[in-house]
Amino acid sequence: MDVLTKKVLTGDIVSAAKLITRIENNKEDAVKIIKKIFPHTGKTYLIGVTGSPGAGKSTLVSELIGICREKELTVGVIAVDASSPFTGGAVLGDRIRMQKNEGDGVFVRSMATRGNLGGLSKATRDAVYVMDAMGLDVIIIETVGVGQVELEIARMAYTTIVVMAPGMGDSIQAMKAGIMEIGDIFVVNKADRDGVDETTKDINSMLRFASGKDAWRPEIFKTIATKSEGISKLIGGIKRHKEYLTTRGLLKKKAYDKEQLLSLVKDIVEARIFNNKNGEKYFDEYVQKIINREIDPYTASEIIFEKIDL
Amino acid sequence: MDVLTKKVLTGDIVSAAKLITRIENNKEDAVKIIKKIFPHTGKTYLIGVTGSPGAGKSTLVSELIGICREKELTVGVIAVDASSPFTGGAVLGDRIRMQKNEGDGVFVRSMATRGNLGGLSKATRDAVYVMDAMGLDVIIIETVGVGQVELEIARMAYTTIVVMAPGMGDSIQAMKAGIMEIGDIFVVNKADRDGVDETTKDINSMLRFASGKDAWRPEIFKTIATKSEGISKLIGGIKRHKEYLTTRGLLKKKAYDKEQLLSLVKDIVEARIFNNKNGEKYFDEYVQKIINREIDPYTASEIIFEKIDL
Repeated sequence: MDVLTKKVLTGDIVSAAKLITRIENNKEDAVKIIKKIFPHTGKTYLIGVTGSPGAGKSTLVSELIGICREKELTVGVIAVDASSPFTGGAVLGDRIRMQKNEGDGVFVRSMATRGNLGGLSKATRDAVYVMDAMGLDVIIIETVGVGQVELEIARMAYTTIVVMAPGMGDSIQAMKAGIMEIGDIFVVNKADRDGVDETTKDINSMLRFASGKDAWRPEIFKTIATKSEGISKLIGGIKRHKEYLTTRGLLKKKAYDKEQLLSLVKDIVEARIFNNKNGEKYFDEYVQKIINREIDPYTASEIIFEKIDL
Repeated sequence: MDVLTKKVLTGDIVSAAKLITRIENNKEDAVKIIKKIFPHTGKTYLIGVTGSPGAGKSTLVSELIGICREKELTVGVIAVDASSPFTGGAVLGDRIRMQKNEGDGVFVRSMATRGNLGGLSKATRDAVYVMDAMGLDVIIIETVGVGQVELEIARMAYTTIVVMAPGMGDSIQAMKAGIMEIGDIFVVNKADRDGVDETTKDINSMLRFASGKDAWRPEIFKTIATKSEGISKLIGGIKRHKEYLTTRGLLKKKAYDKEQLLSLVKDIVEARIFNNKNGEKYFDEYVQKIINREIDPYTASEIIFEKIDL
């Protein structure tokens, strides 16, 4: 086993950071290392924190870190920014704020889009494997923004917390595309502001339809993260959700599903098409033929599939 | 050539509606018909209209339809709702509003998520082929909501219009994940409301960084769609953008790109894995092995890829 892999398994932060950078840059050797560390994963508890900008996600994450540290649990934080390059500053600020916690038992890492959004989701998952293999007890994935990729990433977590602030009714509307379904726990943060009851009511009314028979009934908490208020009740909610998943044998299913494996198989297909010496040229020719209406897209895709260099 | 295909090619709305329903339900024969009609596509002009809820997209679309009809252009409208089932009412209301235009030369069709978001994007593209083959001069895709799938769909259009309303500063923030990049034209609708200049300024400041050398410089228009104000200036902007694409040979590239073809090839891979008699069982076994840490996901995906039933 190489030195980097060994060091990651002993929990070395510098080596883990290096490996995550290789993952972000899509280096081939990163996959080799993931293969080696994977048997050492599966012990961490994964919490997702998502919600609209300005809801106070980072302060809440800081509070969660604090409570974990009090209980001597080690914590990893992955702050994911899938937003456009224009607004890339957000995570950096968050990261600095959270680093006041860093050092003893806390490892904070931010990840941003590098051109391709699909890649971000995969890189985040691999970063989770790295932190899991390091032996961190809890991993918090904080996603900035509310797009489909953020939802996909937030969904990786065993317990997903959706954070809102009072008077953001518009945001609930804007976030309707999926966010109400992924929340196991809802937090109305900044609960000292006006409109906290309306926001709670709004969330409640959108949830009513979501409950199945033995389904988890999402819990709603009011917090003022800047004053550490409401955090221990929130922790109680997280524990109950973990208990719910564990007693029903759902935890392992949450940790790995079909979609993930299918997406890796599709990545191989893509690599095989374009790694072939003439693959790119050949592929482009078909795109051109489609543009010229010499062939239809479905027939073209069938031909390309049959010629994949196995 | 079968009757349905022939009728679609003559512009028959009932047959086209039937075919789009088959596409939505993912019927195999729909693909066969798309293959047949594809050579007859490529003549329409595709306009995307997207933006946050409440910005007045549907009224604006109605106005665009009106102007097209004055010029005796036939119009197809695809209203896409990728939002959660909870809020599925939105499109229906829009559809009814737009149908005041329907009949002579106008075909309105709404499409919603049926379980899988990836499928919505593909179905929308196929619906565009159908309307294109019908001989409609202009197709308008209206997307409700601001998630990643809506962005993906809005991006199909040759000219994409992002609609906002004054005082929705929060929404711009919430929509930052990609929406500023896809807009060729920005519309500040409800321009008789307070805050129109601030919103215009906000848009302008977010655009400044987006301009390349020979790049299209997005235009911003103020409209009051309910009073038909500002619409002809907006049409001028659409024409300039079309001219920009045409003179630079970019129109055909917009109409078909690599990503689309790659995604079809990946769909075939998925179908081959799961259409195989024991495919699903075999695949699930590997998911279970990963959960049990008996194999890592990357190695599992390589094995599955090699055994795809070609």
